Amino acid sequence: MISSVANARVKQVVQWQAKAKERRKAKVFLAEGIKMFQEAPQKSIVEVYVSEAQLPALERTEQVWNKLRQVGFETVSEEVFAKMSDTQTPQGILTVLHQSEYQLEQLVNEHNPLLVVLENLQDPGNLGTIIRTGEGAGITGVIMSKQTVDIYNPKVIRATMGSIYRVPFVYVEDLQETLELLHQKGIHTYAAHLQGETYYDSFSFKEPTAFLIGNEGNGLSREIADCARQYLKIPMEGQVESLNAAIATALLMYEAHRQRG
Amino acid sequence: MISSVANARVKQVVQWQAKAKERRKAKVFLAEGIKMFQEAPQKSIVEVYVSEAQLPALERTEQVWNKLRQVGFETVSEEVFAKMSDTQTPQGILTVLHQSEYQLEQLVNEHNPLLVVLENLQDPGNLGTIIRTGEGAGITGVIMSKQTVDIYNPKVIRATMGSIYRVPFVYVEDLQETLELLHQKGIHTYAAHLQGETYYDSFSFKEPTAFLIGNEGNGLSREIADCARQYLKIPMEGQVESLNAAIATALLMYEAHRQRG
Repeated sequence: MISSVANARVKQVVQWQAKAKERRKAKVFLAEGIKMFQEAPQKSIVEVYVSEAQLPALERTEQVWNKLRQVGFETVSEEVFAKMSDTQTPQGILTVLHQSEYQLEQLVNEHNPLLVVLENLQDPGNLGTIIRTGEGAGITGVIMSKQTVDIYNPKVIRATMGSIYRVPFVYVEDLQETLELLHQKGIHTYAAHLQGETYYDSFSFKEPTAFLIGNEGNGLSREIADCARQYLKIPMEGQVESLNAAIATALLMYEAHRQRG
Repeated sequence: MISSVANARVKQVVQWQAKAKERRKAKVFLAEGIKMFQEAPQKSIVEVYVSEAQLPALERTEQVWNKLRQVGFETVSEEVFAKMSDTQTPQGILTVLHQSEYQLEQLVNEHNPLLVVLENLQDPGNLGTIIRTGEGAGITGVIMSKQTVDIYNPKVIRATMGSIYRVPFVYVEDLQETLELLHQKGIHTYAAHLQGETYYDSFSFKEPTAFLIGNEGNGLSREIADCARQYLKIPMEGQVESLNAAIATALLMYEAHRQRG
């Protein structure tokens, strides 16, 4: 059992919680909680830390305990766990996983792709919620500009509620170039844009589709919006000028889901 | 100019930021930022605080400056403003407003009401986003159980992006009793429920409608779900077990908007 916060492995985990750069260097990410452990693909698990205080409760949950015994785990004192944890009320189980390595080629060559393209999204909660809702709506992948918030940020992971394990995603260096590739592949690109004149539910998304979503404060950059084949808008009553990015994305993805249903 | 953080008014504002009870006692709430000031109904404004450091910038924005001169304001030092502010990067303007006093009677007697009923929602971001999206979708009001997070919590206010000024809402003591009232008034109640068997877009929401949304972790309580006239479900692909509360509410509200369009 690890009972010192000065332990090298503990210090390493703390670094992975706090710094995208450290996670990238080791090609790992962290997922906290029972649900995140249970849904973690076994082959991706690097190591698991369990809080001594929570051990008895975990032992009593058969499925969790079986998996814990299969993959192996390290027990740590409650104090050490609190140090390693990013949450206020830790569930006492922290999983270290290999980062996924999807390729852009793979995402664009899916059968009848339904993609979400994010330009510089900054809010971890929004990104995580888009991943979670995206799995629910049956999207085939997410493409992000490299200035988008790190998908392995613990707040993103938490908001995905496990969908991080199942929705393919890539970061791209040059979003304009990527959009050209999408067009070459016959994927229709739609920019959610305040200057859109046609409502989102007037388009057909049954064909290969990509929705372009911009930064929370500024929307899509002009260069990226200009690349889109079509602008679309979401109707807004009252004095509402825009919707939250995750909400707007959800409405678009579920409209595509309805049409493809 | 107020330049001491020990000033009684400053201390009062700090209390209002932190404590729902203090806000309730004075029947006020706080709204930060330029947009929130600009959209604030003039008759609801109690007082306005402006940071000395931001004053020149505000003077240069004609609309803001005109309104500031009309309603009057108090200048405070940068240090004092930082103390009063709830945000990381304050925009230098904080508005104190009277709390709104809507009546349940008013909400249920609207023409063809489209209501959202929230049971014990806890996340301020979710509540704020529901208010914002709700205005966009044209809902007529929000009814909340009294255990729901305080709508005047600064995080809720921020997430509403101004819709707090325009969407009517009430807290009710007894949600079951309220649902009975809705039924008496001919309002159809739909519970978003994992045990729903019919997809949400199979119902007609053109008639008076209320959507019942439960707590983030636990969903609707059995007692409240049992009161609903109908269960409905949102389709979910993959291994997704539920959607974020604000996302689910958005999909329902916008489906109603589409049908009523």
